[in-house]
Amino acid sequence: MPRYKLTIEYDGSPFVGWQSQNNGLAIQDVLEAGVKAFCGEDVRVNGAGRTDAGVHALGQVAHLDLPAPVRCDVLRDAVNAHMRPKPVAIVEAEEAADDFEARFSAKRRHYLYRIVNRRAPLTLDRGQCWLVQKKLDADAMHEAAKILIGQHDFTTFRSTQCQAASPVKTLEALEVARYGEEIEIAARARSFLHNQVRSMVGSLKLVGDGKWSPRDLEKALKSCDRTACGPVAPPDGLYLMRVDY
Amino acid sequence: MPRYKLTIEYDGSPFVGWQSQNNGLAIQDVLEAGVKAFCGEDVRVNGAGRTDAGVHALGQVAHLDLPAPVRCDVLRDAVNAHMRPKPVAIVEAEEAADDFEARFSAKRRHYLYRIVNRRAPLTLDRGQCWLVQKKLDADAMHEAAKILIGQHDFTTFRSTQCQAASPVKTLEALEVARYGEEIEIAARARSFLHNQVRSMVGSLKLVGDGKWSPRDLEKALKSCDRTACGPVAPPDGLYLMRVDY
Repeated sequence: MPRYKLTIEYDGSPFVGWQSQNNGLAIQDVLEAGVKAFCGEDVRVNGAGRTDAGVHALGQVAHLDLPAPVRCDVLRDAVNAHMRPKPVAIVEAEEAADDFEARFSAKRRHYLYRIVNRRAPLTLDRGQCWLVQKKLDADAMHEAAKILIGQHDFTTFRSTQCQAASPVKTLEALEVARYGEEIEIAARARSFLHNQVRSMVGSLKLVGDGKWSPRDLEKALKSCDRTACGPVAPPDGLYLMRVDY
Repeated sequence: MPRYKLTIEYDGSPFVGWQSQNNGLAIQDVLEAGVKAFCGEDVRVNGAGRTDAGVHALGQVAHLDLPAPVRCDVLRDAVNAHMRPKPVAIVEAEEAADDFEARFSAKRRHYLYRIVNRRAPLTLDRGQCWLVQKKLDADAMHEAAKILIGQHDFTTFRSTQCQAASPVKTLEALEVARYGEEIEIAARARSFLHNQVRSMVGSLKLVGDGKWSPRDLEKALKSCDRTACGPVAPPDGLYLMRVDY
């Protein structure tokens, strides 16, 4: 059974998230239905990151085993055709080693969070950014973000539903930059806890609008207490950008 | 009657275009309904560019006369609130001189056309870009575009429904650049004919995919014959970016 690696882009808005579940259509369901229409068999599509409902991806990665070898461009184009008109697309298909595991072989995940910081409502970016109407200090957010970098117990920034064995993770980068009215927050780590990026962004926003000092953020981290977290940022602004292997 | 200048952003997808007409909802209708809900009177909102159905704007400009003076931020926020959930937003409201005319005072209009050049279907950018699956040579398009710059009779690149008195226009700039899988075409002129940008883009695409030589483009221009134009590019990728006064 030859193994393939897929790089996948999607608009997460209409889905219950990456992972198949019993409360609606998941991105994984769309891909698996597309693959079945292509090869006639039930094939599991295993993703690198289990993005939540409403979270987007420009570079989600998945692997799958097909019953017989196919050309990569045929796999990409045929499954894309079968998935229409769902907003899910395979941007690249590649042959992969038998032991390649999209989730467990991943060395690094890159997420981007997009805030639009202005008074006017969103139009073209609706569902694809978080609109924050109060003026944010992106430099202050960037400085405070350094507190979260490194190895920490991230219990404060972890969903109570998180199934990870340990709350200890190593955050490699957390960078905040303003581009005109948009603020982008880039996060990088080998792996993240459930809701970790949105929880960190929600707390950084409190620093940006002056409600929290950097010291408050540090206290929240050190408390290892979920109730110390700021309001979790909405899924709309979050993108899984890339997975490194 | 104090006059105000509005800078407006919209997703053109659900509308019949900027201008009020009898076949559906126009962006102008949404703004005029919002203004009426705010001030209680019927007020005409006059736009700088009459964008077609499906064409977007980041910087459309309009003027309007209100029955009484108001604070600009109040005007912006209140009308925006009344327009929800339509994807139309006033990003800025300013006081304007009595003789300011959004359409006739305009010195320059800036349009941007976005092509995504890849095999995979669009997801997050659906309705906001033109997907061209065949590989395009953006450098060749950029070189050929120079043929169209300057003062010409643009009859070839003008809708048969165009109501302008003369087909002669001066195109100040037409620049094509590739950014990864995206090709951006920037067009700048005092004013454009109806469908001119989409007509030029549709013909440049033929140069990009090798069907037309630069000489073919020049012949099409010089023929002053609408039937010599390449297929008109779809509205999805077109944005009115800015209007200079």
